[in-house]
Amino acid sequence: MLKVYGCYKSRATRVLWLAEELELAFDHVPVLQAVKLDNPLAPDAPLNTHSPEFLAINPFGAIPVIEDDGLVLSESLAITLYLAKQYGGEIGPKDLEEDAQMMQWSLFAATEIEQNALKISRIANDDRLDSEAGQSEAAAAARLLKRPLSVLEKHFAAHDYAVGDRFTVADINIAEIVRYAQAYQPLMEANPSLSAWLTRCQSRPAFQAMWERRSAE
Amino acid sequence: MLKVYGCYKSRATRVLWLAEELELAFDHVPVLQAVKLDNPLAPDAPLNTHSPEFLAINPFGAIPVIEDDGLVLSESLAITLYLAKQYGGEIGPKDLEEDAQMMQWSLFAATEIEQNALKISRIANDDRLDSEAGQSEAAAAARLLKRPLSVLEKHFAAHDYAVGDRFTVADINIAEIVRYAQAYQPLMEANPSLSAWLTRCQSRPAFQAMWERRSAE
Repeated sequence: MLKVYGCYKSRATRVLWLAEELELAFDHVPVLQAVKLDNPLAPDAPLNTHSPEFLAINPFGAIPVIEDDGLVLSESLAITLYLAKQYGGEIGPKDLEEDAQMMQWSLFAATEIEQNALKISRIANDDRLDSEAGQSEAAAAARLLKRPLSVLEKHFAAHDYAVGDRFTVADINIAEIVRYAQAYQPLMEANPSLSAWLTRCQSRPAFQAMWERRSAE
Repeated sequence: MLKVYGCYKSRATRVLWLAEELELAFDHVPVLQAVKLDNPLAPDAPLNTHSPEFLAINPFGAIPVIEDDGLVLSESLAITLYLAKQYGGEIGPKDLEEDAQMMQWSLFAATEIEQNALKISRIANDDRLDSEAGQSEAAAAARLLKRPLSVLEKHFAAHDYAVGDRFTVADINIAEIVRYAQAYQPLMEANPSLSAWLTRCQSRPAFQAMWERRSAE
């Protein structure tokens, strides 16, 4: 059976959301991120990305990772694209052109948006968005997001979804990256079509189910 | 006919190398990077990533981009993966598992290596690698590359190529990103298997042909 390694509070959400969409049966191994532990190598530390037994499975030392019928795969966006192609029907690409566009959007989100969006996410998680220093750091990250988010805004002003006029794995990959910046209201207000698309994606029962499990973790 | 937009001194090298490997016929439109021009919007400025006529083709405002039978595709790594699947035979994936691994390595290189490798490339291009400040900046970038390059080192100590025991588009995607850090000798010496693989890739006639055209640009 498919195995998914990674706790909910990590990039594993991308895979776990997709699994809900596809009603995929899988074994879930809640590996933690080593950076979130004081001593990830202590004998009584929970299974984490620095644990030797995890590194033996995944030399990338990162979560999520999956094992599927002998294939060990790392990189969350590659995992979702693979699962969508292998098991996803309409959620995956219907031809090579759609496949290419799904890779394009995934790479775009990962390289042009994720890093600055994560800065905003960390500030929000630390409850610093209302502090002066937090506001100023968030504003700096938001300035760098202006151009890439405007590309998405333009796209979603003309299209309901990223690829092929239907909800696909490309929407999951983009939405889970844009979500990191979602707490910063000015960015969402400046990009109303992007914001409406994000709400559309997050209203899906599969996202809601994933989010509920994440909140309970 | 396939159109490739982007000058040689850009991420277009990835696509242009692959095109040489596959002996693909294409129209080459040498769009420049706006950041390299003093006034990209001047009426007599050469075609560049800020030119309105280029943005009309590619709203991402980035190079490379391709047009192939109606498909307009951005993101260099998505372009090479697409071309390899559409036209590549053995250079592309032979099944969904290899396809997944090629995406995995491409995303890994783009998100874990590219940014710090580019820092080294810029220092080297500015002839600052021998200056004290340049050395110290390069050493800082190299420290951040240590972990991801060790993942590659471990892989290439056991495998001649990234995926499927043969040269594929995954090698092009990784090699063109690792190349940015190649001028920093200590990194290459610390990772001999990675370094040997890079030499193996760059010894290919197709890389040499691409490099010659790039040098002449």
